[in-house]
Amino acid sequence: MYLADETWPELEDYFADESLALVPLGSTEQHGPHLPLATDHLIAEAFAREAADRTGTLCTPTINVGVSPHHKQFHGTMWADAPTFRDYVESVTRNLAYHGIDRVVYVNAHGGNVDHLREVGRRLRDDETLYAIEWMWDESIPELVDDLFAQNGPHGGPKETAMIQHLRPELVREDRLDDARDGGVSDVNAAGTVKHGSRTFYDAIDNTENGVLGDQTDATAAKGEELFDAAVDQLCQLCGWLDAQAFEDLMPKSHV
Amino acid sequence: MYLADETWPELEDYFADESLALVPLGSTEQHGPHLPLATDHLIAEAFAREAADRTGTLCTPTINVGVSPHHKQFHGTMWADAPTFRDYVESVTRNLAYHGIDRVVYVNAHGGNVDHLREVGRRLRDDETLYAIEWMWDESIPELVDDLFAQNGPHGGPKETAMIQHLRPELVREDRLDDARDGGVSDVNAAGTVKHGSRTFYDAIDNTENGVLGDQTDATAAKGEELFDAAVDQLCQLCGWLDAQAFEDLMPKSHV
Amino acid sequence: MYLADETWPELEDYFADESLALVPLGSTEQHGPHLPLATDHLIAEAFAREAADRTGTLCTPTINVGVSPHHKQFHGTMWADAPTFRDYVESVTRNLAYHGIDRVVYVNAHGGNVDHLREVGRRLRDDETLYAIEWMWDESIPELVDDLFAQNGPHGGPKETAMIQHLRPELVREDRLDDARDGGVSDVNAAGTVKHGSRTFYDAIDNTENGVLGDQTDATAAKGEELFDAAVDQLCQLCGWLDAQAFEDLMPKSHV
Amino acid sequence: MYLADETWPELEDYFADESLALVPLGSTEQHGPHLPLATDHLIAEAFAREAADRTGTLCTPTINVGVSPHHKQFHGTMWADAPTFRDYVESVTRNLAYHGIDRVVYVNAHGGNVDHLREVGRRLRDDETLYAIEWMWDESIPELVDDLFAQNGPHGGPKETAMIQHLRPELVREDRLDDARDGGVSDVNAAGTVKHGSRTFYDAIDNTENGVLGDQTDATAAKGEELFDAAVDQLCQLCGWLDAQAFEDLMPKSHV
Amino acid sequence: MYLADETWPELEDYFADESLALVPLGSTEQHGPHLPLATDHLIAEAFAREAADRTGTLCTPTINVGVSPHHKQFHGTMWADAPTFRDYVESVTRNLAYHGIDRVVYVNAHGGNVDHLREVGRRLRDDETLYAIEWMWDESIPELVDDLFAQNGPHGGPKETAMIQHLRPELVREDRLDDARDGGVSDVNAAGTVKHGSRTFYDAIDNTENGVLGDQTDATAAKGEELFDAAVDQLCQLCGWLDAQAFEDLMPKSHV
Amino acid sequence: MYLADETWPELEDYFADESLALVPLGSTEQHGPHLPLATDHLIAEAFAREAADRTGTLCTPTINVGVSPHHKQFHGTMWADAPTFRDYVESVTRNLAYHGIDRVVYVNAHGGNVDHLREVGRRLRDDETLYAIEWMWDESIPELVDDLFAQNGPHGGPKETAMIQHLRPELVREDRLDDARDGGVSDVNAAGTVKHGSRTFYDAIDNTENGVLGDQTDATAAKGEELFDAAVDQLCQLCGWLDAQAFEDLMPKSHV
Repeated sequence: MYLADETWPELEDYFADESLALVPLGSTEQHGPHLPLATDHLIAEAFAREAADRTGTLCTPTINVGVSPHHKQFHGTMWADAPTFRDYVESVTRNLAYHGIDRVVYVNAHGGNVDHLREVGRRLRDDETLYAIEWMWDESIPELVDDLFAQNGPHGGPKETAMIQHLRPELVREDRLDDARDGGVSDVNAAGTVKHGSRTFYDAIDNTENGVLGDQTDATAAKGEELFDAAVDQLCQLCGWLDAQAFEDLMPKSHV
Repeated sequence: MYLADETWPELEDYFADESLALVPLGSTEQHGPHLPLATDHLIAEAFAREAADRTGTLCTPTINVGVSPHHKQFHGTMWADAPTFRDYVESVTRNLAYHGIDRVVYVNAHGGNVDHLREVGRRLRDDETLYAIEWMWDESIPELVDDLFAQNGPHGGPKETAMIQHLRPELVREDRLDDARDGGVSDVNAAGTVKHGSRTFYDAIDNTENGVLGDQTDATAAKGEELFDAAVDQLCQLCGWLDAQAFEDLMPKSHV
Repeated sequence: MYLADETWPELEDYFADESLALVPLGSTEQHGPHLPLATDHLIAEAFAREAADRTGTLCTPTINVGVSPHHKQFHGTMWADAPTFRDYVESVTRNLAYHGIDRVVYVNAHGGNVDHLREVGRRLRDDETLYAIEWMWDESIPELVDDLFAQNGPHGGPKETAMIQHLRPELVREDRLDDARDGGVSDVNAAGTVKHGSRTFYDAIDNTENGVLGDQTDATAAKGEELFDAAVDQLCQLCGWLDAQAFEDLMPKSHV
Repeated sequence: MYLADETWPELEDYFADESLALVPLGSTEQHGPHLPLATDHLIAEAFAREAADRTGTLCTPTINVGVSPHHKQFHGTMWADAPTFRDYVESVTRNLAYHGIDRVVYVNAHGGNVDHLREVGRRLRDDETLYAIEWMWDESIPELVDDLFAQNGPHGGPKETAMIQHLRPELVREDRLDDARDGGVSDVNAAGTVKHGSRTFYDAIDNTENGVLGDQTDATAAKGEELFDAAVDQLCQLCGWLDAQAFEDLMPKSHV
Repeated sequence: MYLADETWPELEDYFADESLALVPLGSTEQHGPHLPLATDHLIAEAFAREAADRTGTLCTPTINVGVSPHHKQFHGTMWADAPTFRDYVESVTRNLAYHGIDRVVYVNAHGGNVDHLREVGRRLRDDETLYAIEWMWDESIPELVDDLFAQNGPHGGPKETAMIQHLRPELVREDRLDDARDGGVSDVNAAGTVKHGSRTFYDAIDNTENGVLGDQTDATAAKGEELFDAAVDQLCQLCGWLDAQAFEDLMPKSHV
Repeated sequence: MYLADETWPELEDYFADESLALVPLGSTEQHGPHLPLATDHLIAEAFAREAADRTGTLCTPTINVGVSPHHKQFHGTMWADAPTFRDYVESVTRNLAYHGIDRVVYVNAHGGNVDHLREVGRRLRDDETLYAIEWMWDESIPELVDDLFAQNGPHGGPKETAMIQHLRPELVREDRLDDARDGGVSDVNAAGTVKHGSRTFYDAIDNTENGVLGDQTDATAAKGEELFDAAVDQLCQLCGWLDAQAFEDLMPKSHV
């Protein structure tokens, strides 16, 4: 169920019976010459809505802008500063508890949000407001991602390309896939991003000229569909697992 | 131009030539038994996208959740606490300046955001980062609104109903318009919200049982279309006015 | 009763029996060539003290500096930044609850404080510390204000002039009333402060050269007295209404 | 010159020629059974206004509530939490710089404000906004205070009693001076407030039953007048010293 | 050179000639039944001091308490909340710039600090104060770590045990190594910490009863020495690389 | 008992039986040409560890960097900004309460930390988390300090010199004691730090060229030992006093 399409009286039953919500979060940031800046929030929204439909879980509107200062050198990248992003997500999530929500999945499609969502989740759990965890589609099916692509790239690579080819094909600039690969860094291990154990880079532009990694020409809509179905299935199972937990088992364990 | 659908190289020309952006903001909050919780952010998005299309201005993704604690007693209302909302909007807007944006219109459709957007706008102007102003569609055509409806109601009333009938008719519960009117407060002056000069209420539920005011049965899609066209025209003119200003004329005047 | 003139043992009975306090707040900001910068805090203090005397309510000292950055271009205007003002008022009010105060009227005479006092009031009410509301004298007698003046002006106009003529006549520069009118903006509707529905100004100086609006020559001490008496009466009635409420009826209503 | 009594055009000359302002700060807190809660802010205001008159310096309105949580157990004590107080004073002072003020004396009469005013002064100096220092009357004439009273007491003692007897005699409860002394702690050294080098108390009530120390019966209005004149003279000399300094000499010295 | 052992005149030459500093950071948190709570800060300090000695770099005192709320259920674990830790490290680092330091290595030995140090590093770099990067010893020699231990465990495992056996053998409870392994989780992959792609745990106690992972019986002081020498060498090379960079090359690249 | 040398199971008994902890805090700041920057944190640590050993009290690791912006002009001085320092100490202390600690002594050796530790102590006490007080060795034996030295100086003087001569003689530059005295300010009363009752200085360098006061040539290791023994004895007695108090007697008294 998509919360924003409902009227308030229609939501009464859900809050009476259920306590789980899916909150999609992405980013609006450069994804190379071939993918739209919307890439991450489109993916997050698609997963959250689909899993909501399949499982009958409530899905909220999407938080479209995330923590992306590391892409700022590329035109149009939007971002919220990290402390502000955390506080905004915390506030929105905390307030959901007022209606009876006590467990949340952050359906996330931007790596730069992960640590911040973990920190927010800890805050909300430590004061026993609710239990919120972060989920990213590619983390749920790592073997399949590796199977499908020789060079999957952590940003703007073939896995994200395939996903948009499947979800919103009109937004993929198919004629720029070669450019994406050739102007970026095909093999992330070759990027030299770590020196003597230290990550010495802070921005995407420190590693790659066009902002992306991996071999984008390896992407197809069919692969995107396969990935989507496999990962949605994981998300649905996660919803099922969460539904089955007692609230107290999700809260912090007591001192030894 | 919708920023999120573009790739970063495609945005280069815009930032080279232009410096105005439209940022739509709404809320996700109860709008009575007849309108979806999305009402405000759908309206804001529709205005911003349409004006962007007509004028060639850049439009960002929508901020879907706003300052709505005063609707919290009704199922599903989402909100960010006011200081957090201000900081989030400020951060996102401030970062736009990195790409060369120096003037912003907050295309807003939620009254509860107004003061906060003004405060953010002041912050950004006082340190001369950029010039951001708030615009609400119904404030731009007050006479037309008054002409079309006997009781227009400040929240969930016929003007918002007509707008959704025009923009997203499938989301209006037409069979609940009578309920909306009869279970709410038809004439806002009768709500007794001010005592001896003091607004003694804080929440919508303090005034109205079903969360809405005005006579919703007076709304039609045709009226919605008329309102939409008239207000879009105002917004386009505002874009034109902004485009024509020198940046220094938008900044704070010097001390007398 | 004026709190600051009492000794602590003398206050014991009040806190044992009563739970209402009046907190006067104003500003120290330009009020044109004819009125002192103290105008707003003098008015607030006068109302609060008089209503306290008439009703036996406790009145605290006055917060003399408010949120006035929009008058900064004029010599001597003092202000606290908005977030700081809110936190200061919140802290001072919250601490009153330690003595048993559970309802407060912010007797305010500066329009720029209104939204901030509402936000503070919400914070204090939402965590059920106490119930605080904002009151402004001219909002309590709008018809009388309109009756007495053709052009009442929202700032430094005849209504404030008349009030200081009544309360502190020695502080009115009577020989500058013509200048005030002629160098300012007589009819606020002519100020062009709103463009296509958007308030495009941020500072008083954006609209008016000498900082004031309305026709100040229309003011007399007699009108000031009439306004004062009428508005004090409203404030006393508000105190009576507050006294009669049960605390739980002032707190947030529960979820539907 | 008292800022709040002036109109903005009248202040033009001062800001053109001068750059010093006096900001009075006190508290609203219990001062025993014999003195009003206003004691500290009345004293601060009297010193600041008198020195302003004598030297032609600008004096702002008084900040009436300070950092007094340590008196909270006594009826009516008002306070701002320390971080909030610092931010408020900082904001108000920082904004004075907009008009050209570059040096400020905090004319303070409450010991509990001292450290906080020093911290604010450091902030303002470290970023070279302006130079603000704290001044307390009794610190400027320590020998005279010791000469006049055998037991001067740090709070609500004879020095403050004498000052109010001089400034506002109608506010001293003369018939409670014996009670003040007998119900409090006459000799501060006997209060046992320090254990093995550690101040183990936090609140006034930890040391004294009625909130005051010293021998109040030793106070007279004549002593108050003598103290007032002597300390005003010190404050005037401080204004003179400040006036004579070059701004750069008041700013932080450079690194060795 | 260890900063804290020097006098200020002795440091003059360093700041004149050099601009790099090493800041050791660890934690004070449970490390199972066999290792002291000091483990992480001892390791960090040892690396930083040794590399400082070998390269002539300045080393500051150690920040002994880090972000360890995830170990709180075990006796004695100390921690700072994440936002506070970030601000503290930022403040201390930012202030180093006053003396001329423009590049810093956070010599870190606690995984829970990593993301926070990255965030602080970004803040300091984004405003071009200085360039600070995080380094962890085991990240600099991943192959050696994997070579030496079959189950190296991410916390309290054999790599940390070997390190303390080498650095501070008297602090290792050799008779508890079996307990450490048997009461904890030997193979981290068996801990079930990720469900359907989501890390569903927040605290160490959610995964392991005694707080540690890996096979501690595999540790020896000789292995510790080998690890230490190899990693110190990496850190020294990192210092060399940093020394060789131009400051502008370490700062954010400009917009494309 | 030194917390950081223990394993978590070994701490179980302490937390079961006891509730007092010693937290050493100092600074890393210039102490003239003769003493290391570590002076204050070495002293704090020595006192805390010794008292812990003698009384069986738990001692935590040392917070090595404090509030020392007033020494910043001298090479190598490190500091945390005051609000950040307070929050860090508060966070670390507050979290100790999770293990059952309900009383803390801040064993402090830096005057610049005192007010901040008092403020933190108030926060923790006011919400009844725990009772924390600040202790400085020289405040516990003021007569002895005065007896041993003619000019004891408040910073870098003979009392601190003697202490380091006793604790870490290899760190005292004995050949610079004359320089310390001659290049600094021997008699603090001659420093002219107070003008007309106002402390007009903010930084050490405003008063003294080499950063220190007093006659350092008067110091000996024997005097240091005498001071150390006397003050440790005071600290042990303070621990005894704290142990003997009921928790409720350490909490704020109720309203009169």
